[in-house]
Amino acid sequence: MTESCGILIKGGKVVNEDCSVISDVYIKNGKIISVGQNLQIPVGVRVIDATNKLVIPGGIDTHTHMELAFMGTKAVDDFHVGTKAALAGGTTMILDFVIPQKGRSLLDAYNSWREMADPKVCCDYSLHVAVTWWGDKVKTEMETLAKEKGVNSFKMFMAYKDVFMLKDSELYAAFAWCKELGAVAQVHAENGDLIAEGARKMLSLGITGPEGHELCRPEEVEAEATQRAITIAHAVNCPLYVVHVMSKSAAKVVSNARRNGRVVFGEPIAAGLGTDGTNYWHKEWAHAAGFVMGPPLRPDPSTPGFLMDLLANDDLSVTGTDNCTFSVCQKALGKDDFTKIPNGVNGVEDRMSIIWEKGVHSGKMDENRFVAVTSSNAAKIFNFYPQKGRIAQNSDADVVIWDPKMKSISAKTHHQAVDYNIFEGMECHGVPLITISRGKVVYDDGQLQVSPGHGTFIHRQPFSEFVYKRIKQRDQVNSTPLDPPFAEITALDRIRKVFTL
Amino acid sequence: MTESCGILIKGGKVVNEDCSVISDVYIKNGKIISVGQNLQIPVGVRVIDATNKLVIPGGIDTHTHMELAFMGTKAVDDFHVGTKAALAGGTTMILDFVIPQKGRSLLDAYNSWREMADPKVCCDYSLHVAVTWWGDKVKTEMETLAKEKGVNSFKMFMAYKDVFMLKDSELYAAFAWCKELGAVAQVHAENGDLIAEGARKMLSLGITGPEGHELCRPEEVEAEATQRAITIAHAVNCPLYVVHVMSKSAAKVVSNARRNGRVVFGEPIAAGLGTDGTNYWHKEWAHAAGFVMGPPLRPDPSTPGFLMDLLANDDLSVTGTDNCTFSVCQKALGKDDFTKIPNGVNGVEDRMSIIWEKGVHSGKMDENRFVAVTSSNAAKIFNFYPQKGRIAQNSDADVVIWDPKMKSISAKTHHQAVDYNIFEGMECHGVPLITISRGKVVYDDGQLQVSPGHGTFIHRQPFSEFVYKRIKQRDQVNSTPLDPPFAEITALDRIRKVFTL
Amino acid sequence: MTESCGILIKGGKVVNEDCSVISDVYIKNGKIISVGQNLQIPVGVRVIDATNKLVIPGGIDTHTHMELAFMGTKAVDDFHVGTKAALAGGTTMILDFVIPQKGRSLLDAYNSWREMADPKVCCDYSLHVAVTWWGDKVKTEMETLAKEKGVNSFKMFMAYKDVFMLKDSELYAAFAWCKELGAVAQVHAENGDLIAEGARKMLSLGITGPEGHELCRPEEVEAEATQRAITIAHAVNCPLYVVHVMSKSAAKVVSNARRNGRVVFGEPIAAGLGTDGTNYWHKEWAHAAGFVMGPPLRPDPSTPGFLMDLLANDDLSVTGTDNCTFSVCQKALGKDDFTKIPNGVNGVEDRMSIIWEKGVHSGKMDENRFVAVTSSNAAKIFNFYPQKGRIAQNSDADVVIWDPKMKSISAKTHHQAVDYNIFEGMECHGVPLITISRGKVVYDDGQLQVSPGHGTFIHRQPFSEFVYKRIKQRDQVNSTPLDPPFAEITALDRIRKVFTL
Amino acid sequence: MTESCGILIKGGKVVNEDCSVISDVYIKNGKIISVGQNLQIPVGVRVIDATNKLVIPGGIDTHTHMELAFMGTKAVDDFHVGTKAALAGGTTMILDFVIPQKGRSLLDAYNSWREMADPKVCCDYSLHVAVTWWGDKVKTEMETLAKEKGVNSFKMFMAYKDVFMLKDSELYAAFAWCKELGAVAQVHAENGDLIAEGARKMLSLGITGPEGHELCRPEEVEAEATQRAITIAHAVNCPLYVVHVMSKSAAKVVSNARRNGRVVFGEPIAAGLGTDGTNYWHKEWAHAAGFVMGPPLRPDPSTPGFLMDLLANDDLSVTGTDNCTFSVCQKALGKDDFTKIPNGVNGVEDRMSIIWEKGVHSGKMDENRFVAVTSSNAAKIFNFYPQKGRIAQNSDADVVIWDPKMKSISAKTHHQAVDYNIFEGMECHGVPLITISRGKVVYDDGQLQVSPGHGTFIHRQPFSEFVYKRIKQRDQVNSTPLDPPFAEITALDRIRKVFTL
Repeated sequence: MTESCGILIKGGKVVNEDCSVISDVYIKNGKIISVGQNLQIPVGVRVIDATNKLVIPGGIDTHTHMELAFMGTKAVDDFHVGTKAALAGGTTMILDFVIPQKGRSLLDAYNSWREMADPKVCCDYSLHVAVTWWGDKVKTEMETLAKEKGVNSFKMFMAYKDVFMLKDSELYAAFAWCKELGAVAQVHAENGDLIAEGARKMLSLGITGPEGHELCRPEEVEAEATQRAITIAHAVNCPLYVVHVMSKSAAKVVSNARRNGRVVFGEPIAAGLGTDGTNYWHKEWAHAAGFVMGPPLRPDPSTPGFLMDLLANDDLSVTGTDNCTFSVCQKALGKDDFTKIPNGVNGVEDRMSIIWEKGVHSGKMDENRFVAVTSSNAAKIFNFYPQKGRIAQNSDADVVIWDPKMKSISAKTHHQAVDYNIFEGMECHGVPLITISRGKVVYDDGQLQVSPGHGTFIHRQPFSEFVYKRIKQRDQVNSTPLDPPFAEITALDRIRKVFTL
Repeated sequence: MTESCGILIKGGKVVNEDCSVISDVYIKNGKIISVGQNLQIPVGVRVIDATNKLVIPGGIDTHTHMELAFMGTKAVDDFHVGTKAALAGGTTMILDFVIPQKGRSLLDAYNSWREMADPKVCCDYSLHVAVTWWGDKVKTEMETLAKEKGVNSFKMFMAYKDVFMLKDSELYAAFAWCKELGAVAQVHAENGDLIAEGARKMLSLGITGPEGHELCRPEEVEAEATQRAITIAHAVNCPLYVVHVMSKSAAKVVSNARRNGRVVFGEPIAAGLGTDGTNYWHKEWAHAAGFVMGPPLRPDPSTPGFLMDLLANDDLSVTGTDNCTFSVCQKALGKDDFTKIPNGVNGVEDRMSIIWEKGVHSGKMDENRFVAVTSSNAAKIFNFYPQKGRIAQNSDADVVIWDPKMKSISAKTHHQAVDYNIFEGMECHGVPLITISRGKVVYDDGQLQVSPGHGTFIHRQPFSEFVYKRIKQRDQVNSTPLDPPFAEITALDRIRKVFTL
Repeated sequence: MTESCGILIKGGKVVNEDCSVISDVYIKNGKIISVGQNLQIPVGVRVIDATNKLVIPGGIDTHTHMELAFMGTKAVDDFHVGTKAALAGGTTMILDFVIPQKGRSLLDAYNSWREMADPKVCCDYSLHVAVTWWGDKVKTEMETLAKEKGVNSFKMFMAYKDVFMLKDSELYAAFAWCKELGAVAQVHAENGDLIAEGARKMLSLGITGPEGHELCRPEEVEAEATQRAITIAHAVNCPLYVVHVMSKSAAKVVSNARRNGRVVFGEPIAAGLGTDGTNYWHKEWAHAAGFVMGPPLRPDPSTPGFLMDLLANDDLSVTGTDNCTFSVCQKALGKDDFTKIPNGVNGVEDRMSIIWEKGVHSGKMDENRFVAVTSSNAAKIFNFYPQKGRIAQNSDADVVIWDPKMKSISAKTHHQAVDYNIFEGMECHGVPLITISRGKVVYDDGQLQVSPGHGTFIHRQPFSEFVYKRIKQRDQVNSTPLDPPFAEITALDRIRKVFTL
Repeated sequence: MTESCGILIKGGKVVNEDCSVISDVYIKNGKIISVGQNLQIPVGVRVIDATNKLVIPGGIDTHTHMELAFMGTKAVDDFHVGTKAALAGGTTMILDFVIPQKGRSLLDAYNSWREMADPKVCCDYSLHVAVTWWGDKVKTEMETLAKEKGVNSFKMFMAYKDVFMLKDSELYAAFAWCKELGAVAQVHAENGDLIAEGARKMLSLGITGPEGHELCRPEEVEAEATQRAITIAHAVNCPLYVVHVMSKSAAKVVSNARRNGRVVFGEPIAAGLGTDGTNYWHKEWAHAAGFVMGPPLRPDPSTPGFLMDLLANDDLSVTGTDNCTFSVCQKALGKDDFTKIPNGVNGVEDRMSIIWEKGVHSGKMDENRFVAVTSSNAAKIFNFYPQKGRIAQNSDADVVIWDPKMKSISAKTHHQAVDYNIFEGMECHGVPLITISRGKVVYDDGQLQVSPGHGTFIHRQPFSEFVYKRIKQRDQVNSTPLDPPFAEITALDRIRKVFTL
């Protein structure tokens, strides 16, 4: 087998976030050994001709929930099928969420997730951990996770009242602690109180179908929570990452905060970029229920284009999927009550093609920005750049040969376990031709060659430079002693920063 | 005494919110009998020559706290001195706040406020009632207040944690109940959690002076809460009134919500329109402490002009003062700890002149808009228009002869009990020459002629037309049955409105 | 005939812009004699029972082009038919535009318009005059028009290159001159250069249908010109009135300028509030061509609702129609070239019902705001308030009895000369039951009783108080001498205002 | 001399726009040979220890005017002194402007600039060419410049009426032609008509001092022109580069356009980021006059911080200086008339330190973004990346060793010819320790070792990938045939793009 001698990708256009160059790429032992023209390569290597193709860093999906037990059932894509599907779509790493139940140990949950995932994953992965309750034990365990377990990101819920939701004062404490640990604070930003009241109202009015899911959580419920989270995070100078930005108004909140210098990152997802919430009014219940997720897709049909514009312009930073798939059968748990429909959609396989189609093919972003939002930025924020997210010497050999040929998305041909696809029938002009994970060709012209456990867990160190350089500098500048009196506005500005208020 | 035969104001320019006309005004028995040119008037009336003067509806101060017991002491302007000062400044009615302690009866508090005020007031007044806790008893008492006691406005606090503050779910319930009763929901919009944490941090850093008051509650703390309140109120289709809008960012939130069709009103106050928060950094502690109020004045010196622009443009609606005065001696309770400085500033006497100077004299608004924001709009929102707020037949004879002569504001000459004035030294080009309250000249060329109890309590009916016409129509339109399927966005819009979500 | 003794409207709800009251209204000799309850009325009057109906000031259409010769043909609604249709729709006054050809005398044009209109009009009317070229003669004639001919508003075109368009330096001069004369500067705000280039490009691409009309003047072409006009007007402290605000982006420009204190008024029209530009893509050419006007209706279907929100919120001020009707046959002049389709739509008859339906019935505005935007504000801006625009003693007896019953709009039943209706099939919940013009019932339960020449020309004085009070005050404040040095920003602000730059 | 054998920079932190790594850098023959740890280097090389220092790509100043003949005099920094000063400040390349007089040959002007610069420059340079008039000859010469002379950027003036200013229709033609040639269209965005009128007004009011310069061109004059330029450029799908963005409002226009997907770049300059327009009111005439440039610095003191926030957030893209220096003596030409003060300020030497201080030291941006905005982005936009703008194998050896030590800026110590410094007295925490240009150490610890002609002219190819990839894709997508009818908004969107209107 020649691959053990390495792989030479010849003649492709190597696309990194800063520019594109026609170059060869030589891979061996799971690493990129060299990038350049006319590379001198030992005999015996497998040579892949990439002429007229793009050679890009493998995609990184920042947001998945494989085999999650949720709402009385369990997501059908497990870590095996889910990561296989990822590879088929050009994604070579996923970041999944450990979600402990309220009151339960974060470490125990982390361990059980590792036990679930390690033997099954076909690509590299890492784990965010959700903080679903608050207390000294949680603080201690967060510290252990950050210092010993490779976790540098924690998600807090502002929704799912009585289940996962934290109060504002707990958010404050959690953000402050993330800052101490050098972690990225993540939030699911929706006003849980309003959703709870809204859902009650819908049901009392006899609205039980999937449209009720959207009607009880209109986008201002998302925008309000986003604004609140940013305000609280800023009060403790903590970097914030807003998962699944789904609406125009929430995206604007994130964008405006960034203009004001807030260290905040917004993550749109494949579903939000590729389809919209008019589907909740589809005549077929099963179709409509297939799109139920939280926060919901928005009925305003200009939403996906708007989010893509902001993603192209770096107002939004990075893309995930919230891949959490339930079969039609499972969705039917909520046949008579939308609050019982298991929340979740697919995306892990189609994300790269969706963003190519709606972003690059449409002319909104170029191929370099495509690499940034599908891969490099994730690696930077979560602190494994340039190990991943770049085609460069010494980087991991997670590489995709990308082809601009036409593909049609369908549940009939996808590699996920779920029996429908929210992007059914969509035509995409960009698809992965070959996917290389850890130096091995795992997907080639439609064929997967993977083995469970091929992937490994990626330990992530705290204090990501990309995130924390500004945070630290602000702390430092602001600790400088100040001379009274504070007569001018600049002095006021300065003192205000002392407290990052 | 000729006044018993009536008063004839001759030759003045009668200014209402819609236009100005040279007219005579004939007053008798506390009412305006007629407005017009060359009125046929019985002999014996007192004639006031108003040539080259403006004849305007008496000012209405929407926000006072006379003799309020607060932070361990009591405001020095009581209902007697405070209303005298109001009249001297051209204000003929105040709306004060009943503030029951957490857990205490709203009705009892209301009664004690009436007992305090009724015998003392020198001008008409009315009462808002604060809802400082939540429960069935509160609901019952709110209903009694609205239906029997002349109260159609209730204030909820989002700040003063553990003292007055309500949780979001309680706000939701309170707003929903206000809507049922036809009342206006008022909010003090600041994030109480963040203020509590911020104050702790300041003190721990050794910052104990008045500047700490501002530093621990920067304006985004106000803007965030304002956004949240508007979102919650909209969820129950309840009209909202934001008291003391103090910052540019909070004012923008209100303005944008109005553009989006929200029924929300913003109230800037005299202090916020006439001075700014740089005073908290004044070298003299007593000077700085004199400006301490919540939310604080803002250090950005462009704030007052910005708020005035929005007030001129009807983005903000109406003006109060939050008059709650403490002497320097009382302020000194917080000499070593800004959190103990009694919160409050003056304004009830100077409001009209401040707004004239910064609004009309500067060219930002005309005299008609001046009448709207100092008087008419308050009467409309709180449902006693055109009884007050307009110079017209049958309206109450609360009238001011306004002179554009120059006046200098000073604690040495003001009529309030407090021993300093936050507008000290400011020159104003507009002052009241004569104030008529309930048909009686009570202030004339610098002299007050008032008697305690001259004023009466104004009962206010719920469901103010100005506020509730749109609210009711929205409820009505949205109850129309809808035909499935909801294929178009317009249908979505329509169904969304059913739930006013 | 009893009408000579007067008309008594009994028991209706009299709606003015500030409030609504159940009152009787007594009319005689073309004037409103009294408004009040239980009026003592002489015998012989005609009594109209208005119980459960609204009694509103007759509508004022700020923007019509009756029998305009334009693009090689002539509008089919002449001053007779057009004003009859207006009355049938509850509009009792129109403001039409005198449009002289480039280089021709403004006075001559004015005279010929008067000669055309005076003998035909069935309701009162007035005239704006367009300034289509620049020179000393134009200045002189503008002065004559303003001082002697009752014209206080002049329209300048930024579009129609080589036909009506002025250059920026001419706009500057024209605005400066309007300011001197106390007139309102009006602009048709579209970038004429870009339209000319765009139209050329469309045709060269083979796009000849009505959709080309919109494609060559996208909304940013309108927004850009609006911004430019506001900037130029502010440079000379001249009030500005933007006719036919058609797009969300242009409306935002106007709204933001008002927030910044600019004296600018935006006029949406019935077509823009009631329908949208998707019609340009209608399969039937005749249908599509019927909507061709400049600026075009916008394809974004959320435009009408957005404009109505801003109109409700006083970001936009007043409503017209740009009524300029051409029959299908005339439209066919542009069958093979959209640039030859005569520009214009109907609206003069349906405006009031459209605004009631989309504004009041929908819950966006109340009945008082309806009166403001259909009548009072026009009277204020163009300086004939409260002669018109208010139900009050001494006002003109232009009154409408308004009924909230359902009406369906159709070319089959409308009173205009044009053979189609852009609102065909729309159901409206508010219609005029009776229209009274100059004290005479001219429309009653579907029947018109009018005679040509019944209406008269309304002379309008310059320096409308509503518009010019702030303008003059700004001039005055800014002429105050300033002390150097200008150390503070407030001083800078002040000096800047000297030049209103 | 060991440098001929190469230079090894050891142990520094190599900072590129995407990340920072501790690495050695080996330089030889003007190129970077390798970057990595523990490089195997031939003996004889000069070794520079960069421990605890940053190794950054040399700065690129996008905007200079060396020895420009302007307003009756000539800038004192010539290409020799000016480029020396650049090197002393860490800048290793400048882009200067060829400015032909109206009616004169662009090629001739280009040639004379080359003749002036080539023998004098101490660092590499390139040339933009101004298009100051329009005609077929201009088009032909632009094509020659783009295809043969290494010029891919052309600047058009919207100000300097009658001198350099183009009309809107000429701008349209120029932008369209730039697009054809693959060039970047640059604009000086100020409304020249309004400036001309404003200046006249100031002088007529007796305002002759430097403050008049600002008063006659307030920031809305800049914002308006910026909006107009963007609208016109978008009409022809041409990329736009706005030189010297000086005000908050203009910067917002650029930012909002980028959010909407416009291919537009904003260039703030050192003066605008480091100081403000209050200086125009300085008591000393010479001080005030020293800051005169166009567009002016803004008196609002929050401007520099605002611009830096946007620069940090990629709303603005790149930084120049508009370095065009005149001695106090030359400035005195306008002693009695501000319109005669030669326009221009310094900056070429201090730019890097100013941005470090206000951007990085303040915590607004990190070191990587610093590299992007001072170097990499310029190289990308103007199409010589990664030849310059990156520390990487094969890139030009323009490298700076950057030290975070404190430096005080002063005319006493600077290397420019001009006899004052607009940043006098400012302390900066970041300074160049060593500057390497074309592989040669030219500045070391305060000492310059340069020779005229050391630098070379950099030919720039058209169709920069960074700029044109999206432009081309939009053209391509939009040329796809479309099926009628265009029923949905997405179809409308699509057709609209056909014409990029």
